[in-house]
Amino acid sequence: MDFTIRAATLEDCKDISRMILELAEYEKVLDQVKITQRDLEQDGFSKNPFFHGIIAEVPEHHKSGEGHTKVGYSLYFYSYSSFKGRAVYMEDLYVMPEFRGKGIGKALMSKVSQLGLAAGCTQMNFTVLDWNKSSLDFYLKQGCWDVTSDLGYHCMRCEGDALEQLAQGDL
Amino acid sequence: MDFTIRAATLEDCKDISRMILELAEYEKVLDQVKITQRDLEQDGFSKNPFFHGIIAEVPEHHKSGEGHTKVGYSLYFYSYSSFKGRAVYMEDLYVMPEFRGKGIGKALMSKVSQLGLAAGCTQMNFTVLDWNKSSLDFYLKQGCWDVTSDLGYHCMRCEGDALEQLAQGDL
Repeated sequence: MDFTIRAATLEDCKDISRMILELAEYEKVLDQVKITQRDLEQDGFSKNPFFHGIIAEVPEHHKSGEGHTKVGYSLYFYSYSSFKGRAVYMEDLYVMPEFRGKGIGKALMSKVSQLGLAAGCTQMNFTVLDWNKSSLDFYLKQGCWDVTSDLGYHCMRCEGDALEQLAQGDL
Repeated sequence: MDFTIRAATLEDCKDISRMILELAEYEKVLDQVKITQRDLEQDGFSKNPFFHGIIAEVPEHHKSGEGHTKVGYSLYFYSYSSFKGRAVYMEDLYVMPEFRGKGIGKALMSKVSQLGLAAGCTQMNFTVLDWNKSSLDFYLKQGCWDVTSDLGYHCMRCEGDALEQLAQGDL
């Protein structure tokens, strides 16, 4: 199937927002999604964007059952490893179920790594849910490795009241 | 003990580089450190920095056995959650062993959360090694939670030849 991968624009935020909800449903965390189309527009397409995005698009005659031609996306941002330097973080990689198995996910991931390498990054980081064996297998097949299983790194988070209290501290 | 927390400058890169090596030794990954003082200068203090830093400094009369007054640091950068929006990532939090237990680590972490909240972030993310119980306990005590243990997210990485091959893909 023909498809193109291109940089996301402001006009894609409606579809990205839709696909974020689809992804969250797939990951069984739909109740955690607070992001709206407007948030994406403001946070990704203002002067100092918090993220960048790429879109996978199919021709009109291959559109989805519901009429969508934007069928996959990845959000990414530049990050840093104090041990290894410049890094790119792939926040999301999503392809609509009916378009999987056609190389679109790999093409999106490939594009993020190209952009990362071009910016001088030596690594691409991301997360995967441990029960999501098909995604994990896909990533391992691309030569990625599981930093949590192999080295014991755990993702930690501070948010809500705990973040507010921490910020108030006693400085 | 008196100490101050302030934004890192170009002149701090020598001490940050020293403390990164100390941290890597503590985490038993010294062989993985590729970062030099010059990398930090270029990557953190050019037009579009890959990270920001803060420094903990003690007065001259409290300097370390080896004569250091810069005794702790944190590197951070802004990131994004496609579910929850703006986030800040605390890449490192380090306090020299002889200055621990004096509130410096908490003050550094508090400062990163302040900066994150000021930038509209709703969460602060970081990683911890699962065998580092004292750090894990410290973070849990601040109200942070373990995303890996609680939700099953694993950190994944692509680097070296695998990253190059992925980028070459078949686009």
